[in-house]
Amino acid sequence: MLEFKITKKDEETSARLGELKITHGVVDTPIFMPVGTLATVKSLTPEDLCEMGIKIILSNTYHLYLRPGEDLVEKAGGLHSFMNWKHGVLTDSGGFQVFSLSELRQITDDGVYFNSHIDGSRHFFTPEKVMDIEQKLGADIAMCFDECPPYPCTYKEVLKAVERTSAWAKRCKESHTRTDQALFGIVQGGVFEELRRKSAKEIKEVEFPGYAVGGLSVGEPKEDMYAMLQVMDESLPTEKPRYLMGVGAPEDLVEGVKRGIDMFDCVLPTRLARHGTAYTHKGKITVRNAKYKDDFTPIDEECGCYVCKNYTRAYIRHLIKAEEILAPRLLSYHNVYFLAKLMENIRTAILQGEFSGFYNNFFENYQY
Amino acid sequence: MLEFKITKKDEETSARLGELKITHGVVDTPIFMPVGTLATVKSLTPEDLCEMGIKIILSNTYHLYLRPGEDLVEKAGGLHSFMNWKHGVLTDSGGFQVFSLSELRQITDDGVYFNSHIDGSRHFFTPEKVMDIEQKLGADIAMCFDECPPYPCTYKEVLKAVERTSAWAKRCKESHTRTDQALFGIVQGGVFEELRRKSAKEIKEVEFPGYAVGGLSVGEPKEDMYAMLQVMDESLPTEKPRYLMGVGAPEDLVEGVKRGIDMFDCVLPTRLARHGTAYTHKGKITVRNAKYKDDFTPIDEECGCYVCKNYTRAYIRHLIKAEEILAPRLLSYHNVYFLAKLMENIRTAILQGEFSGFYNNFFENYQY
Repeated sequence: MLEFKITKKDEETSARLGELKITHGVVDTPIFMPVGTLATVKSLTPEDLCEMGIKIILSNTYHLYLRPGEDLVEKAGGLHSFMNWKHGVLTDSGGFQVFSLSELRQITDDGVYFNSHIDGSRHFFTPEKVMDIEQKLGADIAMCFDECPPYPCTYKEVLKAVERTSAWAKRCKESHTRTDQALFGIVQGGVFEELRRKSAKEIKEVEFPGYAVGGLSVGEPKEDMYAMLQVMDESLPTEKPRYLMGVGAPEDLVEGVKRGIDMFDCVLPTRLARHGTAYTHKGKITVRNAKYKDDFTPIDEECGCYVCKNYTRAYIRHLIKAEEILAPRLLSYHNVYFLAKLMENIRTAILQGEFSGFYNNFFENYQY
Repeated sequence: MLEFKITKKDEETSARLGELKITHGVVDTPIFMPVGTLATVKSLTPEDLCEMGIKIILSNTYHLYLRPGEDLVEKAGGLHSFMNWKHGVLTDSGGFQVFSLSELRQITDDGVYFNSHIDGSRHFFTPEKVMDIEQKLGADIAMCFDECPPYPCTYKEVLKAVERTSAWAKRCKESHTRTDQALFGIVQGGVFEELRRKSAKEIKEVEFPGYAVGGLSVGEPKEDMYAMLQVMDESLPTEKPRYLMGVGAPEDLVEGVKRGIDMFDCVLPTRLARHGTAYTHKGKITVRNAKYKDDFTPIDEECGCYVCKNYTRAYIRHLIKAEEILAPRLLSYHNVYFLAKLMENIRTAILQGEFSGFYNNFFENYQY
């Protein structure tokens, strides 16, 4: 179950406003999805996310398969029920994680053998196995199992990954049966324009209700990522939702929207928070730095979030230094709110036909 | 500034209902004060505490002196402003911590030399120094600097501690000048009835608006603690608030109230939470245990807190196993709520003249 309607198109760029209807509600796009790897957006409750207007989160199939296991989540009534989240959930396919996190992986045309990063135990993911896991997890949107090559990589290696990703996409679609869950295809191709076009063509031929751009933001220069997004903008169907996987730096969200991306996800806001870093409209600040010791101003004076309304940099720095749990909680709240608000402002700008002005204004202020 | 009014006395025990008016509001007693050691009740926000009806918390002078330092807190406008907490705060004196946490301590009649547990740096606490720190921290209630002997301890050692505590109480009172902050005296005496009576007599002679019972729950058998509380009940003025320091196990709260105690504090609810343990009306449960793996019931079916209304044991166990920050957050919320609710039920029972019935019912259910 998925419907996507583009409600407004920007005249100067590929930015567009959309409404994504999924089993658990309607999501206004472009949207940023916070990551709840293990069925929890680290340190935050569902109520915290609701306060920020978050309507969809991402959870990780690889991690949930290992802990607590898809069978337990299914027994709990699926991810929504397990974690008490009433809005949308998207699960990735584990494709990225088996290549980046696990050890001793061995790729065959049938699937991927890998060792758990937790206890070293041996596992085998095939497209069919991943579909089974994702259907048990029960997200609104599931992702196809793909091969995500590292960066840098040779043309030949990426070609092989593109071919496997296409073959696996067909097998995923064939074994996916849940009608309350939409299955998205993933385009690979590294930073090779030709392979990106080939992958897009092949994945489009399988036909999915939405398409994701995978294998970017894996170490390549930003210009290469933006160039590939340009290629994707030209290659993917206009009327379907487009999801840029694993990308969430503020500047990349703005650049992605400009190139026609509707959905994003990233662990950055919560990961940075756990390392004492916060977003501001001028760029990131490292709150643990000594210069904030007696700075009694909020993290970002232009931010209207709960944290900025109630706490000072000096207090949060003290919490960080003392290794208090409240530090990552407050900074996670602020950082996720910051990205949610950024996307809201982007949507408003598109609606008002002012996206280019917004774009210029953003980059005049934001240093990265 | 402190007013205390006893509004109802139980007819069968020493339990009493009171109203404690402090600079930041009115507190209904008997009350449990959650501990916010470093100006944060670990993992919880002030809003979380307000939701539970918490009206006063405790903060630790020793810890705040070391990090971030009393001068920074004063510069922030005091503890309330620093941590964004609008209700009551009580600061202890560091007496317990310099004896239990620090290293290489050396006690003289003038004060205590000690090494920081963080970086080993050398410090010297005198009654005057502690008053200076506590006044800068700016809590509603400050505590006198006392000598808290360990358990077990000889009569002679405890006698010396009682004498020092009395002498220091006078010096504390003399150097304490803030009129918006009440200063409480502390009674020591270990498990020696004679010394408890001597200490109570001497501290009463200095005259304070409230009296604390220190040096209990430091390793002695529970019967000894309860016996000493009996002695304290006989020795302390009836009309002044009585605070039992560092005690917060549910059974001890009930036993303490029975013996005329009005105020309690303890790190247990949040510490147990961080170790995966939760209170229930039947006793503590170790949520990380395998038997809760697929237990989709709440922590405590009789509890009406946010956590019990929204999450299962299975989910919280998963969070604990995965070392997710949300685990201590949810369990801390539940455990602090549990004690807040227990005190509320105790107050209701006293008000309705049914404390003895409550007492019997509690111990019929609660296994410890």
